[in-house]
Amino acid sequence: MNEVHMDRISWVEYQGRVREEAAPVFLPVGATEQHGPHLPLGTDALLATAVAGGAAGSVAGLVAPALAYGFKSQPKCGGGQHFVGTTSLDAATLIGTVRDTVREFARHGVKKLVLVNGHYENQWFLIEGIDLAMREVQASGIEIMRLEYWDFFTPATLARVFPDGFPGYALEHAAVIETSMMLHYHPDLVRLDQLPDDPPADFPPYDFYPTRTQLVPPSGVLSSARGATREKGEVMASELTRLIAAAVRDAFD
Amino acid sequence: MNEVHMDRISWVEYQGRVREEAAPVFLPVGATEQHGPHLPLGTDALLATAVAGGAAGSVAGLVAPALAYGFKSQPKCGGGQHFVGTTSLDAATLIGTVRDTVREFARHGVKKLVLVNGHYENQWFLIEGIDLAMREVQASGIEIMRLEYWDFFTPATLARVFPDGFPGYALEHAAVIETSMMLHYHPDLVRLDQLPDDPPADFPPYDFYPTRTQLVPPSGVLSSARGATREKGEVMASELTRLIAAAVRDAFD
Amino acid sequence: MNEVHMDRISWVEYQGRVREEAAPVFLPVGATEQHGPHLPLGTDALLATAVAGGAAGSVAGLVAPALAYGFKSQPKCGGGQHFVGTTSLDAATLIGTVRDTVREFARHGVKKLVLVNGHYENQWFLIEGIDLAMREVQASGIEIMRLEYWDFFTPATLARVFPDGFPGYALEHAAVIETSMMLHYHPDLVRLDQLPDDPPADFPPYDFYPTRTQLVPPSGVLSSARGATREKGEVMASELTRLIAAAVRDAFD
Amino acid sequence: MNEVHMDRISWVEYQGRVREEAAPVFLPVGATEQHGPHLPLGTDALLATAVAGGAAGSVAGLVAPALAYGFKSQPKCGGGQHFVGTTSLDAATLIGTVRDTVREFARHGVKKLVLVNGHYENQWFLIEGIDLAMREVQASGIEIMRLEYWDFFTPATLARVFPDGFPGYALEHAAVIETSMMLHYHPDLVRLDQLPDDPPADFPPYDFYPTRTQLVPPSGVLSSARGATREKGEVMASELTRLIAAAVRDAFD
Amino acid sequence: MNEVHMDRISWVEYQGRVREEAAPVFLPVGATEQHGPHLPLGTDALLATAVAGGAAGSVAGLVAPALAYGFKSQPKCGGGQHFVGTTSLDAATLIGTVRDTVREFARHGVKKLVLVNGHYENQWFLIEGIDLAMREVQASGIEIMRLEYWDFFTPATLARVFPDGFPGYALEHAAVIETSMMLHYHPDLVRLDQLPDDPPADFPPYDFYPTRTQLVPPSGVLSSARGATREKGEVMASELTRLIAAAVRDAFD
Amino acid sequence: MNEVHMDRISWVEYQGRVREEAAPVFLPVGATEQHGPHLPLGTDALLATAVAGGAAGSVAGLVAPALAYGFKSQPKCGGGQHFVGTTSLDAATLIGTVRDTVREFARHGVKKLVLVNGHYENQWFLIEGIDLAMREVQASGIEIMRLEYWDFFTPATLARVFPDGFPGYALEHAAVIETSMMLHYHPDLVRLDQLPDDPPADFPPYDFYPTRTQLVPPSGVLSSARGATREKGEVMASELTRLIAAAVRDAFD
Repeated sequence: MNEVHMDRISWVEYQGRVREEAAPVFLPVGATEQHGPHLPLGTDALLATAVAGGAAGSVAGLVAPALAYGFKSQPKCGGGQHFVGTTSLDAATLIGTVRDTVREFARHGVKKLVLVNGHYENQWFLIEGIDLAMREVQASGIEIMRLEYWDFFTPATLARVFPDGFPGYALEHAAVIETSMMLHYHPDLVRLDQLPDDPPADFPPYDFYPTRTQLVPPSGVLSSARGATREKGEVMASELTRLIAAAVRDAFD
Repeated sequence: MNEVHMDRISWVEYQGRVREEAAPVFLPVGATEQHGPHLPLGTDALLATAVAGGAAGSVAGLVAPALAYGFKSQPKCGGGQHFVGTTSLDAATLIGTVRDTVREFARHGVKKLVLVNGHYENQWFLIEGIDLAMREVQASGIEIMRLEYWDFFTPATLARVFPDGFPGYALEHAAVIETSMMLHYHPDLVRLDQLPDDPPADFPPYDFYPTRTQLVPPSGVLSSARGATREKGEVMASELTRLIAAAVRDAFD
Repeated sequence: MNEVHMDRISWVEYQGRVREEAAPVFLPVGATEQHGPHLPLGTDALLATAVAGGAAGSVAGLVAPALAYGFKSQPKCGGGQHFVGTTSLDAATLIGTVRDTVREFARHGVKKLVLVNGHYENQWFLIEGIDLAMREVQASGIEIMRLEYWDFFTPATLARVFPDGFPGYALEHAAVIETSMMLHYHPDLVRLDQLPDDPPADFPPYDFYPTRTQLVPPSGVLSSARGATREKGEVMASELTRLIAAAVRDAFD
Repeated sequence: MNEVHMDRISWVEYQGRVREEAAPVFLPVGATEQHGPHLPLGTDALLATAVAGGAAGSVAGLVAPALAYGFKSQPKCGGGQHFVGTTSLDAATLIGTVRDTVREFARHGVKKLVLVNGHYENQWFLIEGIDLAMREVQASGIEIMRLEYWDFFTPATLARVFPDGFPGYALEHAAVIETSMMLHYHPDLVRLDQLPDDPPADFPPYDFYPTRTQLVPPSGVLSSARGATREKGEVMASELTRLIAAAVRDAFD
Repeated sequence: MNEVHMDRISWVEYQGRVREEAAPVFLPVGATEQHGPHLPLGTDALLATAVAGGAAGSVAGLVAPALAYGFKSQPKCGGGQHFVGTTSLDAATLIGTVRDTVREFARHGVKKLVLVNGHYENQWFLIEGIDLAMREVQASGIEIMRLEYWDFFTPATLARVFPDGFPGYALEHAAVIETSMMLHYHPDLVRLDQLPDDPPADFPPYDFYPTRTQLVPPSGVLSSARGATREKGEVMASELTRLIAAAVRDAFD
Repeated sequence: MNEVHMDRISWVEYQGRVREEAAPVFLPVGATEQHGPHLPLGTDALLATAVAGGAAGSVAGLVAPALAYGFKSQPKCGGGQHFVGTTSLDAATLIGTVRDTVREFARHGVKKLVLVNGHYENQWFLIEGIDLAMREVQASGIEIMRLEYWDFFTPATLARVFPDGFPGYALEHAAVIETSMMLHYHPDLVRLDQLPDDPPADFPPYDFYPTRTQLVPPSGVLSSARGATREKGEVMASELTRLIAAAVRDAFD
């Protein structure tokens, strides 16, 4: 069976995969960010890599080394920059990293590139990085899919994961979805005994600077992760693998 | 025993380690770069992470997620940018990444930061990234050690690794040192059956742009890796762990 | 009665308003972007300015000149960059504009600054611009509220505007909300006879580059604006004025 | 009659004007800057827009939304950055804004672009912004005229406006020319009762940093605006409309 | 007698001059730009350095190495960027060079810094470079004078240099002033036998991009240098030395 | 005989040399940096220019004005940034300067460009500047050689200069090589009576930030310059002229 991780194969093998087999290359983009007392700082990069690996395995693709640092955490989606451990990049740095790596994949002859984003705050800087790169490399014929993996969950799956009704992605930071998926992919890194019992965060319809940290639960968890199970994680992971692989197969033709 | 990898612990645990125990934080900096047909593209990041992990384990330190992409490969030290698989950043991007991450570690309260570089071409951009960060965060009291790990090898070790005489670091790309260390740390990723037999590269005392690719061995290996063994790798790894840990203990006081 | 628009008063008057009366300053941020055949290219800047003006009038505030150019239009929220007339900025330019203007308002002695965003694609670059400025000017005591005006609509209002159920903001580009609000604020600029009858756009759960323009309705309208009325616009405008003014009064104390 | 302002027409109409009628597009560039106690902060943008509008009306052209923020005010031409209300951009930001908007107009198919500058300090950053854009878009066939509007006044007009002799543009900030033109275009925004009686500024043949603010009249007016009249404004406005329109007609063929 | 050129003394001597004697430091800023067939490409840097040297000699100052490359030549003041030999910098590069060198002089303890500009196109980028540096180093107590040397000529001198009346600085590129001064400072570099006889350039009141090169005399000389003499050069040089030295003495107290 | 210095000839002559005679152009890159009490601050630029001049004289080449300011001095190779007099640029500024000047030489029609580096810390920023320029101008056909001049010394010469054995370039800052070469090229600028007697610096195998200045000899000289003679300087200069000229002749064909 084929190795999926680009950093574990030689350039000669990589060249064969990309040029002769037209392998799609997946670039996971994560963050180093607080995820409450029960999930590790690397959650976003670990999940993006795992999701990318699942899909890549289904389409004979390759997974490039993840971007392990992401854009600055915001109170409403990641708790905010006042947490110790959250380690973030300025916009220009993340944009430049995406632009440079896309430029290189285009030089390699990659035609199908998939950015798998696992950190909500990254999205718009990935868009800009891709746009700047495409100004330079569009003639290479590279095509790029960019996705936030949670956008692939079907209503049926959300109904299963949230039997009392899906409250929306707004506060799903270090909560049921991420905890369940970590229980599936990296159970040794989850500390269910540390699940906090903060009430869900309640934010006004605006943002305020400097951050009003009193609005953010001290644990960093925006809504309860109670209800997270390994089985739910498996259901979601399996769906993501299947649907992202299908999207890759369909979209690049 | 303590977990060494920052991305595998929660922010709460990280905070305790950094603020109460004054744990040194190691930031490995690598590259995604051809290393001949026998070593994987991730060699530099894998080795920098492994070396950092060894030292961190000895000093109750933590290893942050590696910077997996580095500065552009040059013919004389990494083969050059014409290889497929080599995936590199512009100077401004790498400088910005180092500046941003140093700024964040300073905010966390890290006082002892160690950048472990595993890719020759990165050195001067790490210097600039640190310098730009220190303009902003010097008052935090953070202190930073930056090292290229190979500068810690003693003459005795080099004599043991190169019984016929150490030819110098100049052409040591994907050659005896890196191959031996990979055989020690990641034996499953080394393909000794793929060792090329190109003669060593012979470069003039200048560089030329556009790159004259005919000067670079087609395999990407600048001098022979014959003579690499797992035992040599173990000797080197053990020495690095010991000497870097000692340097960290001594320097930050 | 007080003039609300900063560009229509002298610096002497402005100084009095800001320093003696502690007037909040509102900075509208818009775009120059296609809004279908029935709305003008300036819709986002016009609406952001009108909303800011309403709230400023209620709290004795001032409205600074709008940022009339915004971040690049994306297919799913603004139709995309392939439309003629859409005139957009790179991320770095928009970020810099926000950073510079915030820095200046801080120098003026403004303590209450409100960024009123009217173009979905701008949000994350406003966040970064504010963050970069705050690194420089936090000691000035300036505080900043950033809002997307549509986040203030109450469920009751949405129920009134969408009697058949609110389909979500996703496709609300040049549709019922914006058309109704323009009918209220700038009826002379709306061409109801030009309302297109494209079916609503149907996007996959990923983005693709280069843009697949066939997914975007040729008119640039992502869902029907049928149902837009001046009365609905008035209801929404009135609610925004009331709620944003209240938020400003409450938040800055 | 044709609408002149781009932000008031739809993209469909704009496309027709630009692609089928080859309409020249005028981009006014102003500032938000103190103009004494008698003129509003928006004077430069208002005048640049008005002048552009006059010429555009004569040549079936369009006026894009003005750049309302300009480069930092200097003591000898705008009073300096110590005035409250003056709201300026760094050079890189203004350069980027011009580069980006020019790039977009070129994409639209605009062949005749006219930058109408109303703020002395902007000039060299407009030059650089255009130069950077032309590196990217020269192949589009776009041609660009850049002008400071005051360079179009004829000696006869200056003699009429300054019956005692034209003292030169050096100190013409918030003085006779701008006040007269504002009396013509925006009489409701001029407060003739607030005309200051500071003596004209007297500057040495060098600049000094930090600014020696004692050299700048406290009102911000560099020479007297006494003698400004609406009639003079009308004469100047009419001349500008005629001569700029003629230049546009002649130059782009 | 004291050496005037910073690059010819050791750091120890420089430190004594700057810290103990409070020597003013002069930074000449020039260009590498066509100056017709009779003057060398280095004219602007040579003249700025010579003028700085004259003044520095009078006030026990030091002259730093000149910035030998300047901003892009414009048709109306330097002929334009289509000339071979003209070697120019982007705005950001020149701004950065000024910011960085000012930052360093401030670190040295320089309190009196004089930028002597010899290339018209540089002016606004020097202003920005100084402004950016002052944000960082204002607390150091450094004060900066920036001057274009030609602004120090008195009416009496201009009357002597131009007996038929001074036509204005507009077309004084490679013409009477620069040629006379080069005849004084660097007579061996002037080729009077190569003086072109192009008629003076005649420019419209706007600029056009791409440059309309037919408006620029093919020699690159914008008005005749006939009338240039070594004696005039000596008069001007002597006046500049005296007046700039006096300004330095007066202004920094 | 041909003038070698570009700034001393007119654009017309330069054009002839470059376009008709295909003259190689040499760009010296130096620094303004402490070189102990016996050598001047301009040593690196003076030597790079002298070496370039020697080679250019042998191949009918031209020497462009030197870049007189270089990258920040590091303790192990130049003493560090804590010395007064050392005047350095940020990485981005030096990179930009190289990119811009290379772009201009390509526009001139230069086909053979040689960057002669005289300051160790510059190397990697020259590499990046060239790389960025080549993205833009590779189609022009320009080819670039980049060299650090000391890499051309033969073992025989080093044996002659260091009769007791060459200790390596590591500490050769302001030591035997540079002092000897300055005695040859600029004897009037060397103060042999000021030779310090600090013992050689002894650095650990890592760098530390903030700089531990106690590791750097207070004089700024990293190893003794005793043993420097004019004759050694002449031998080295003569060898460099011969070998660099030969390399230029050979490489560009």
